[in-house]
Amino acid sequence: MAPHAELDSGTAYGVGQTPVSASKEDVFVVDSPNVTYTDREIRSKYTYRTTSVVRGADGKYVATPKETLYDFKVDRRIPKTGMMLVGWGGNNGTTVTAGIIANRRGLVWETREGPRAANYYGSVLMGSTMKLGTDAQTMQDVNIPFHDVLPIVHPNDLVIGGWDISRMDLAAAMDRAAVLEPTLKAQVKKEMSQMVPLPSIYYPDFIAANQEDRADNLIPGDKACLAHVEKIRQDIRDFKTQNNLDKVIVQWTANTERYADILPGVNDTAENLLKAIENGHEEVSPSTVFAVACILENAPFINGSPQNTFVPGAIDLASKHNAFIGGDDFKDNSAPRRFPSQNVVDDMVEANTVLYEKGEHPDHTVVIKYMPAVGDNKRALDEYYAEIFLGGHQTISIFNVCEDSLLASPLIIDLVLVTEIMTRIQWRAHTDDEFKGFHSVLSILSYMLKAPLTPPGTPVINALAKQRAALTNILRACVGLEPESDMTLEHKLF
Amino acid sequence: MAPHAELDSGTAYGVGQTPVSASKEDVFVVDSPNVTYTDREIRSKYTYRTTSVVRGADGKYVATPKETLYDFKVDRRIPKTGMMLVGWGGNNGTTVTAGIIANRRGLVWETREGPRAANYYGSVLMGSTMKLGTDAQTMQDVNIPFHDVLPIVHPNDLVIGGWDISRMDLAAAMDRAAVLEPTLKAQVKKEMSQMVPLPSIYYPDFIAANQEDRADNLIPGDKACLAHVEKIRQDIRDFKTQNNLDKVIVQWTANTERYADILPGVNDTAENLLKAIENGHEEVSPSTVFAVACILENAPFINGSPQNTFVPGAIDLASKHNAFIGGDDFKDNSAPRRFPSQNVVDDMVEANTVLYEKGEHPDHTVVIKYMPAVGDNKRALDEYYAEIFLGGHQTISIFNVCEDSLLASPLIIDLVLVTEIMTRIQWRAHTDDEFKGFHSVLSILSYMLKAPLTPPGTPVINALAKQRAALTNILRACVGLEPESDMTLEHKLF
Amino acid sequence: MAPHAELDSGTAYGVGQTPVSASKEDVFVVDSPNVTYTDREIRSKYTYRTTSVVRGADGKYVATPKETLYDFKVDRRIPKTGMMLVGWGGNNGTTVTAGIIANRRGLVWETREGPRAANYYGSVLMGSTMKLGTDAQTMQDVNIPFHDVLPIVHPNDLVIGGWDISRMDLAAAMDRAAVLEPTLKAQVKKEMSQMVPLPSIYYPDFIAANQEDRADNLIPGDKACLAHVEKIRQDIRDFKTQNNLDKVIVQWTANTERYADILPGVNDTAENLLKAIENGHEEVSPSTVFAVACILENAPFINGSPQNTFVPGAIDLASKHNAFIGGDDFKDNSAPRRFPSQNVVDDMVEANTVLYEKGEHPDHTVVIKYMPAVGDNKRALDEYYAEIFLGGHQTISIFNVCEDSLLASPLIIDLVLVTEIMTRIQWRAHTDDEFKGFHSVLSILSYMLKAPLTPPGTPVINALAKQRAALTNILRACVGLEPESDMTLEHKLF
Amino acid sequence: MAPHAELDSGTAYGVGQTPVSASKEDVFVVDSPNVTYTDREIRSKYTYRTTSVVRGADGKYVATPKETLYDFKVDRRIPKTGMMLVGWGGNNGTTVTAGIIANRRGLVWETREGPRAANYYGSVLMGSTMKLGTDAQTMQDVNIPFHDVLPIVHPNDLVIGGWDISRMDLAAAMDRAAVLEPTLKAQVKKEMSQMVPLPSIYYPDFIAANQEDRADNLIPGDKACLAHVEKIRQDIRDFKTQNNLDKVIVQWTANTERYADILPGVNDTAENLLKAIENGHEEVSPSTVFAVACILENAPFINGSPQNTFVPGAIDLASKHNAFIGGDDFKDNSAPRRFPSQNVVDDMVEANTVLYEKGEHPDHTVVIKYMPAVGDNKRALDEYYAEIFLGGHQTISIFNVCEDSLLASPLIIDLVLVTEIMTRIQWRAHTDDEFKGFHSVLSILSYMLKAPLTPPGTPVINALAKQRAALTNILRACVGLEPESDMTLEHKLF
Repeated sequence: MAPHAELDSGTAYGVGQTPVSASKEDVFVVDSPNVTYTDREIRSKYTYRTTSVVRGADGKYVATPKETLYDFKVDRRIPKTGMMLVGWGGNNGTTVTAGIIANRRGLVWETREGPRAANYYGSVLMGSTMKLGTDAQTMQDVNIPFHDVLPIVHPNDLVIGGWDISRMDLAAAMDRAAVLEPTLKAQVKKEMSQMVPLPSIYYPDFIAANQEDRADNLIPGDKACLAHVEKIRQDIRDFKTQNNLDKVIVQWTANTERYADILPGVNDTAENLLKAIENGHEEVSPSTVFAVACILENAPFINGSPQNTFVPGAIDLASKHNAFIGGDDFKDNSAPRRFPSQNVVDDMVEANTVLYEKGEHPDHTVVIKYMPAVGDNKRALDEYYAEIFLGGHQTISIFNVCEDSLLASPLIIDLVLVTEIMTRIQWRAHTDDEFKGFHSVLSILSYMLKAPLTPPGTPVINALAKQRAALTNILRACVGLEPESDMTLEHKLF
Repeated sequence: MAPHAELDSGTAYGVGQTPVSASKEDVFVVDSPNVTYTDREIRSKYTYRTTSVVRGADGKYVATPKETLYDFKVDRRIPKTGMMLVGWGGNNGTTVTAGIIANRRGLVWETREGPRAANYYGSVLMGSTMKLGTDAQTMQDVNIPFHDVLPIVHPNDLVIGGWDISRMDLAAAMDRAAVLEPTLKAQVKKEMSQMVPLPSIYYPDFIAANQEDRADNLIPGDKACLAHVEKIRQDIRDFKTQNNLDKVIVQWTANTERYADILPGVNDTAENLLKAIENGHEEVSPSTVFAVACILENAPFINGSPQNTFVPGAIDLASKHNAFIGGDDFKDNSAPRRFPSQNVVDDMVEANTVLYEKGEHPDHTVVIKYMPAVGDNKRALDEYYAEIFLGGHQTISIFNVCEDSLLASPLIIDLVLVTEIMTRIQWRAHTDDEFKGFHSVLSILSYMLKAPLTPPGTPVINALAKQRAALTNILRACVGLEPESDMTLEHKLF
Repeated sequence: MAPHAELDSGTAYGVGQTPVSASKEDVFVVDSPNVTYTDREIRSKYTYRTTSVVRGADGKYVATPKETLYDFKVDRRIPKTGMMLVGWGGNNGTTVTAGIIANRRGLVWETREGPRAANYYGSVLMGSTMKLGTDAQTMQDVNIPFHDVLPIVHPNDLVIGGWDISRMDLAAAMDRAAVLEPTLKAQVKKEMSQMVPLPSIYYPDFIAANQEDRADNLIPGDKACLAHVEKIRQDIRDFKTQNNLDKVIVQWTANTERYADILPGVNDTAENLLKAIENGHEEVSPSTVFAVACILENAPFINGSPQNTFVPGAIDLASKHNAFIGGDDFKDNSAPRRFPSQNVVDDMVEANTVLYEKGEHPDHTVVIKYMPAVGDNKRALDEYYAEIFLGGHQTISIFNVCEDSLLASPLIIDLVLVTEIMTRIQWRAHTDDEFKGFHSVLSILSYMLKAPLTPPGTPVINALAKQRAALTNILRACVGLEPESDMTLEHKLF
Repeated sequence: MAPHAELDSGTAYGVGQTPVSASKEDVFVVDSPNVTYTDREIRSKYTYRTTSVVRGADGKYVATPKETLYDFKVDRRIPKTGMMLVGWGGNNGTTVTAGIIANRRGLVWETREGPRAANYYGSVLMGSTMKLGTDAQTMQDVNIPFHDVLPIVHPNDLVIGGWDISRMDLAAAMDRAAVLEPTLKAQVKKEMSQMVPLPSIYYPDFIAANQEDRADNLIPGDKACLAHVEKIRQDIRDFKTQNNLDKVIVQWTANTERYADILPGVNDTAENLLKAIENGHEEVSPSTVFAVACILENAPFINGSPQNTFVPGAIDLASKHNAFIGGDDFKDNSAPRRFPSQNVVDDMVEANTVLYEKGEHPDHTVVIKYMPAVGDNKRALDEYYAEIFLGGHQTISIFNVCEDSLLASPLIIDLVLVTEIMTRIQWRAHTDDEFKGFHSVLSILSYMLKAPLTPPGTPVINALAKQRAALTNILRACVGLEPESDMTLEHKLF
């Protein structure tokens, strides 16, 4: 495929790459009776260990170790994958697009501080590592990039497209975003000027009024309707066909909507939600319409904003269609990844039965304001004030300054890559016959999201260390590696 | 024992409690063929899992899962334990003493913000929890205080004593420290005014000049000598006898000394170090003399300051005597526990082969200044400045304000409690005959220390999550519980 | 007068001092034909210099120096003065009361950092100095406390009383405020426990709902009415009589009210406002009722909260009665005194015709939240982000932490002291016959207030340096001293 | 003059402009008997008012108002002025050069946040205003740019040249500085690449070792000598001739040197200093050699670094030659202009006889570290911790981030412009016959400098408000305007 030719033909709205090889070279192999490699698959056995606790009549706990044996299999063939963004012309959409182009072409540009080269800094999969094991000779940790644990799509190979309520081309939209260096923009400008978002949907009641002036690229209709769902589904199919894709993953990177009311009979079940759309009910948001279209089209859909796109009816629908959904809200600057956000504090409080009474919560408040002067260069000011030993106090005050879209863009890529590999993993309890996929609600994406969506009835895990462990361990499980015992000091203890 | 009577007799230098029961009630029991409980012991079997990695000629790694079976046994009888502090009359020594008295008596005092009650906030063992397992019915995490995992000494039961170069009584020294509320001090004043530190040793070359005026309580001699070692050993024995103790643990909580030069023939081996002390060599520091005395007396010795107390000869000596040592440097305010200190950054850099070249290090500088005006109310100002996606930057600036001694005191308690329980744990490879104790160098204490001491030739682990996991998992191992698989989102994934 | 006896009699609601001497000793005298001292007065002549600017048809300015000669006279006799606070039982009311008692008695109390003695730190008049002139011999500046420039009431001599919607005595209210050290509180507790606020007025519509539970000490009626005005006037007269006072000054130190709507026919003129009160109109706030009562009673009234107590009708009424009013909003922590608040920024922008277009304003936002956890220990987090030379940026981030009431209390004292001396200064243009007092609206109080009230039609001056200069120069004018030429480097220039 | 032609000829080291008009149009005229305008001069009379204070035997002060009448005259003809920088190739030198070129050409360039145009933001003279007077009709303040008060050189008209120990051309040096946007640099690159610094002098003992590699552009000799002085004098004369200049002003913008020891017989008098140079004495620094050359050449010399360039012998020499000198240390980021630096705190403490005992000083410490990672993007972290009312505390913590050279460059321009105008002002006491110039040591420059140099025996004024008043009032005096009475609230008071 010659993307530029396509673009020149005036019909394309995306940009892609020559076909990628069916699989990539493994960085390592596991030597274990629990793992089998074939050309098309990795198969593994994995023992899952937990402790089951029962509280007796005497108030004492009885803790019983449990083991369950699972089988995993991973399709090793890397598919040609498209990423479609809702709000493609926004700060996040233009930044991630320019970033992928810059990486694909190996661009270098001048900055105030000297030349900089394209990179994927900030991406968990591309820019950070996990421990594979211990070097048999040096006894040092061996760390490998997350991206090398399984055969995962390379972001350079993603074909990008999307929708926006503004028909501004991506080059102009990138200027408007004021995120990237002009010296970088100059090099991607031509390619991006040929990218124009598909018309999107705009229900004024859900969107901040300041978006109205931009809204010149709309599918007709200002309420949810079947025609909107059908048009979006058709867009996905067209994008797939025109770019010869195996798979498309869709993300909401557009503005935050207002929350939708949860109404019985309207958005509480899959059936009611579809009916509500058919009837043009006013309480169905644009993001929910996109989610429904993707679910019906079996394209995984991820929500990067905080609103409740996934009303109960949408989750129900995804579940019924075995379609993957994930959300909510990118972990960008307003809740820095390294420091405890309110959610993480909640988890710590919940876990600490010594310091906090049941139901007790720290006093807290969060304020978010839009300051035009700083543009995308967001600042977060956090203060933690705690009572310590013997009535003393500790005050920790944090200023965090950075370009929001530069934090969000690598996460957008991670969400696509993790979601994609999750579509190629199957599992079963060893005693079962049938392999199956993961739950529709991809809670594995929690590490990149502020308010992780979880299957109905299951708790949210906010602690970063646990979120990271879950991601690490699921990847390890697929290659038959149990978690390290983590008594990391063993060679010193013994 | 009637401590006040003793104190009134004018001979005591410590204060204790009536004898404690031989064991405490278990909060839970483990129901597993791998665990056996007797009156005196808990015995467990524990499978330790790692991944051994070999790099082949083709550059590819081969990763092989490994399992080793260990046996553990824990003495369930809680001993009567003494804690002796070097620098007892300093800010840390007076604060931890007053804190334990306040807890023992259940004191309540007025503060600006209202009444406050004695507590152990900030202690890992007393004030935080670990996950025991998952409730069989609610599927919620069951968390229990660290202190309840094994039969561990309660800090209220510690008998406290120590040395100081000043003969100021503990009540006056507490006033000098300016750490605690006057309303709390008033209630512990009488008891503390009867506590007078034992004479200590003072080698001017090792100590800041501003300590000279305080130095009115000295064992004669201004260089290391056998007499100093002998006097300290005698002090420990006397303390043990007078207070009817099973065990004494000693901590250096005094001022930071200058670093000692490592000199061949002087402090490089156990033998040379003992000779150097005999000869009054000038390069032996007071803290090393205390360490040597404790090792010879088989009293565990912990160094809470940054200097190199544990010269190679001292480590060698501890190893030969199977005596426990641990250090260095309390994790108090100058490297806040929740945020990455330089060491932690080093670990992250070491692990990340994508972002950093081998041997590449972030540009950093650390400045510590003593500001009389703020007293113990230390402030740490940290800034992290990083390049992110596409040449952008993130700046995180942190102000941390709190009373240093209120952070350090709970750690002093934790160090004693963890060290003590480590003396009661034995282990062996399942294939071995003999049980044995842990390595002399207690790297398990890393979680409470800034610059963890490790056995010669083994790497330092600085990452907080790993340090915590090591502590958690060793405690769990003793009751036959393997680490949770940590795929914490399992019930959502499947 | 024996205040304690009075208090013991159970009838008093205030506390005072033995009568003060009629005048205090001068710290300096001015030797100039422009100044005359008598026993009862200081009289001075003062030349006021300005530059009058006219813009010509050619766009050029013509600047003409102007001089006006004024006469001033100051009554040297210091009156016995009462300070009545609305919201006496609040954080500010209890803190300023305890502070004055502590100073009066010369109290010393223990704190965490050692003993502290009563002081007036933070008071402009008591704790800061102004330049009197240059020492004739050393050529060094001679600085004297503001309080010594004119014969000003000493705060220790103020008799304190007031109203509150809660009948909690002042000692209990001081505990509730959680501002002062318990060791200080213990010493003033007995005296303050005998102080009980007079019943106040409570119109729920104007006050935060969280005050309702406290409201157990009310003059009947939940809307403005003449009876309320009359009762308050009677309270002032009683306070004056019972304490044998020459003068009473009233301050609103109670909670912030909601803003009142400015309604034609209701609160736009003095006449309408009085009628509205007579008719029980709902748009008259408690603070306006207090203001009206004070104006009619000729007791100066100062508003320390941000609401618009001084509706046009109230200003009109004050003007007609030649009664002094001042406001609004104490300069405490939410706009630190040393750093530019938004108002000050506005002034700078207004003055800078190079950097800002007419009507252009920096992008700004202010958020104030109540955090129960920190109590009175307020924190302000400010960030200034500016474009500098050649498109660069400067970011200044400020954390400011302190006890709000400890900042406000000295200002409350300053406001009373400055207001009182203003009642004793008379002036005239030298060509006039009659002396007169200052304008009813005391804009001279601006230095202590965040949102200075000014006479109708006159601009607000927010720049601290100018506010301070105004206060300094008016005091100097009364003793016949013109402003220093301020070419402070003169002896170096020439 | 055609600067590029000159540059192409290979002989030029500076860049200039076509000759400027002899005078610029006045923005205003003063209508007063005290002012006379002629084509060549403005003449004014100015009454200077102070208060002389004498302390009597009874401890009381007697304050006597004083007036002195001065005459001023200003040469209205704006000269063609050259600015020569020592360390021209450094961050400050390249930034100010690029900035002036950008302004001269009216350049616009792209940045991350959109296009930016050349400006003089940060310059006191070009970017800020002073109050001229009050509009006769609106009674609003009339503010005019400082630059418009007198006929002052426009920075666009400065001809720039200088010395550097590196022969790197200015374009390459600008890249090395990493201060400016690449899009701006691209537009000035050609012009700056033709600018090459004159060889400078390098005495290794005075300069940080990291400069050695750069030192490839040296006048031979590594100690002070007459040949160095002569060469620098010749450079100044050549620059003047080649660029047809009326006047040259020289600034030290190079690296900070170590302090020179003050040695009797070496650098204590003018005579000794000249002899020391002749003898090649090792304690004469490069910056002092430059200062001596400039003084002898009668070119004003300003020192923008903190070292003691102006040893007593240098000040003596300047005084004897009536040559202007000024310093030390640009007010850039390490002491932000808006917030109190240590010096300012010292002044406040000195002035406040209530809070501080004579000789008492706040506890303070200052640490400055060079962090390569942030380059010119300096950060200052300040904390102020103060005791307030009744033993409370206030903590103010400030983070200040910005490009140092972007702060310093406008100050470099201000220093030249103010120095230049000072060479055209003459004054006399009205009773004297002869006009004369200002003192050799230009303390009027204090507003732009951190550690203002003052004539021997006169105090330093650090308070920003006073420094600004001095600058304002001297400019006003030249046009016959006395200071405003500053009772800024007058129309409200009366």
